[in-house]
Amino acid sequence: MKLNIGVLAGDGIGPEIVAQAQKAIDAVAAKFNHEVVYTPALVGATAIDQVGDPYPEETHEICMKSDAVLFGAIGDPKFDNDPKAKVRPEQGLLAMRKKLGLYANIRPVTTFPSLLEKSPLRLDIVEGADLVVVRELTGGIYFGDKGRSEDLTKAFDNCVYTKEEIERILKLAFSYAEKRDKRLTVVDKANVLATSRLWREIAQAMEPEYKDIEVDYMFVDNAAMQLIQWPKKFDVMVTENMFGDIISDEASVITGSLGLLPSASVGVHTSVFEPIHGSYPQAAGKDIANPVATILSAAMLLESLDLLEEAKAIREAVNKSLEAGVVTEDISKEKAYKTSEVGDWIAKEI
Amino acid sequence: MKLNIGVLAGDGIGPEIVAQAQKAIDAVAAKFNHEVVYTPALVGATAIDQVGDPYPEETHEICMKSDAVLFGAIGDPKFDNDPKAKVRPEQGLLAMRKKLGLYANIRPVTTFPSLLEKSPLRLDIVEGADLVVVRELTGGIYFGDKGRSEDLTKAFDNCVYTKEEIERILKLAFSYAEKRDKRLTVVDKANVLATSRLWREIAQAMEPEYKDIEVDYMFVDNAAMQLIQWPKKFDVMVTENMFGDIISDEASVITGSLGLLPSASVGVHTSVFEPIHGSYPQAAGKDIANPVATILSAAMLLESLDLLEEAKAIREAVNKSLEAGVVTEDISKEKAYKTSEVGDWIAKEI
Ligand SMILES: CC(C)[C@H](C(=O)O)[C@@H](O)C(=O)O
Ligand SMILES: CC(C)[C@H](C(=O)O)[C@@H](O)C(=O)O
Repeated sequence: MKLNIGVLAGDGIGPEIVAQAQKAIDAVAAKFNHEVVYTPALVGATAIDQVGDPYPEETHEICMKSDAVLFGAIGDPKFDNDPKAKVRPEQGLLAMRKKLGLYANIRPVTTFPSLLEKSPLRLDIVEGADLVVVRELTGGIYFGDKGRSEDLTKAFDNCVYTKEEIERILKLAFSYAEKRDKRLTVVDKANVLATSRLWREIAQAMEPEYKDIEVDYMFVDNAAMQLIQWPKKFDVMVTENMFGDIISDEASVITGSLGLLPSASVGVHTSVFEPIHGSYPQAAGKDIANPVATILSAAMLLESLDLLEEAKAIREAVNKSLEAGVVTEDISKEKAYKTSEVGDWIAKEI
Repeated sequence: MKLNIGVLAGDGIGPEIVAQAQKAIDAVAAKFNHEVVYTPALVGATAIDQVGDPYPEETHEICMKSDAVLFGAIGDPKFDNDPKAKVRPEQGLLAMRKKLGLYANIRPVTTFPSLLEKSPLRLDIVEGADLVVVRELTGGIYFGDKGRSEDLTKAFDNCVYTKEEIERILKLAFSYAEKRDKRLTVVDKANVLATSRLWREIAQAMEPEYKDIEVDYMFVDNAAMQLIQWPKKFDVMVTENMFGDIISDEASVITGSLGLLPSASVGVHTSVFEPIHGSYPQAAGKDIANPVATILSAAMLLESLDLLEEAKAIREAVNKSLEAGVVTEDISKEKAYKTSEVGDWIAKEI
């Protein structure tokens, strides 16, 4: 099989960690006899610096032509705390989501036994937690009308959802639940919001199509509590864009494996795979960043192209690297390997 | 001094726990020579059942005439998971907030040494955490225009904030920070929302008036993570209504003292004091619910009327009851006291 992969390394540690994921994909390609063509493209602060646009048209075209996109990270401190800057890296992210129709962000949250001590939660609470947050990514308050009154003393953001948008993401969430433990939690604020009531109505109407799935409905404030109190009670959680932003980040810190978690943004035109952590600018260029989240994102990428054995080979190699203690300094202070060493070790193991 | 206190006991365990708080207030009144007049009024499911309205006009008038309102809890399982029910208890809550102008919800989150083992977080992470969440309560997406398109396939909720609303709550948050550790975290989503950008602009403009306060700005997704990872790093957090709903509930579970935490809703006309926990219908009438959160809400009530010594007397008695193990079954399984016994003990101690 021939794979066309767009490579958007982005800012900070992006290029270093993406390079390790490419090593893993190359190793898999060699083993399973695939041909891989990588097409690099600019995104984020790097793209602003070079061409004045955080998601240039050329990058968009490369993504559109790719079977899948491997993404690093974006963000540069020079844009921080400056919400009034004319062009910001995040705008590139939002433009990419909209233009590629990346309607669902999927974040599996798993525990790694060797990392459990890094969890801020008590061992008995978090051990064995295994859940997926499915976040709607191209609708809601992120993309509704927004602005200021003429005298600038009043601001507004409109949250809008259509039946199609809601059905599409719920369908995906149901399908994840079917492949997993068959439990789906719909997170909303139906006691207050009209959009949430539409979400809930549609989910309730879809339930009969998925008789084997146990569906429950939870208000977002309650979900934010229960995620910490009983993370093991969740299997698949699905929610709208803004709640998903909060809930998926909250979920990502409970297991202590923040630096190791991958994500997929499923799109209409193509899909994008990236670690959930940021561009970690302080570490850029130092060959110390943890590449595992990006390597596991590559596994999700392969899985999305139905290369299940290939994805499994990557995951197994990653697990072995953790067991063997071939890890970066964020995981082991005593014996820390470099980013590139971890990447090489995993590629070789594959 | 003569105190007029509106008493809205509400549903479930509401009446039982409010009765214990009244005992504490009575004990304080006897000790410090105050006269207290309580005026009971209907609210919540109880009010729907009796007069068809969760926040009847008569109740509103009683609140308007009170120096402060002591509130129990609302909610009844028969309204659960039925967002389409015509009248729901929560509507009473929202109506009360709007009509009394309860613009700020204040939630102090503290740790009780004897309860730390109940925290889902590791001891070293949570020990000593002491923060206050200040949530805007009468604006934003809760009270903006909302509805459906004619064909019902599209729903919207508008989030609106005015300069006055934002300034008012920020002023209150700054004043809390001044009385505490002089650190204020403004939680927003200024990288996406126009309303958040207005919040941030106004906060930045107010900073020079509060030179001794260290202000920082944090995106809500990041705040949701850091609350779990480093709860001790926060002193006062301030945020808009919807984010505050999520963040304050999240904050309330990290210390393990959920059942003990009080809250104040500060209003233009009067203020309302209530435990943050719910109506716990399964325990209603059993004399087993923990009255401490409500008793501590009474302490906040007295404080709001500048009765600082009186508030302190309640707090000290509560601490002694915890040290002495005079606690309800949620805290000690071995030797559990009844709700009314704990209330009597604390009143006597005062
Ligand atoms: C950078 C920001 C716009 C973005 C979001 O809010 O979606 C980020 O927090 C994320 O979750 O990917
Ligand atoms: C019941 C509901 C409307 C309410 C809210 O969202 O404000 C509750 O969650 C709260 O925080 O007091």
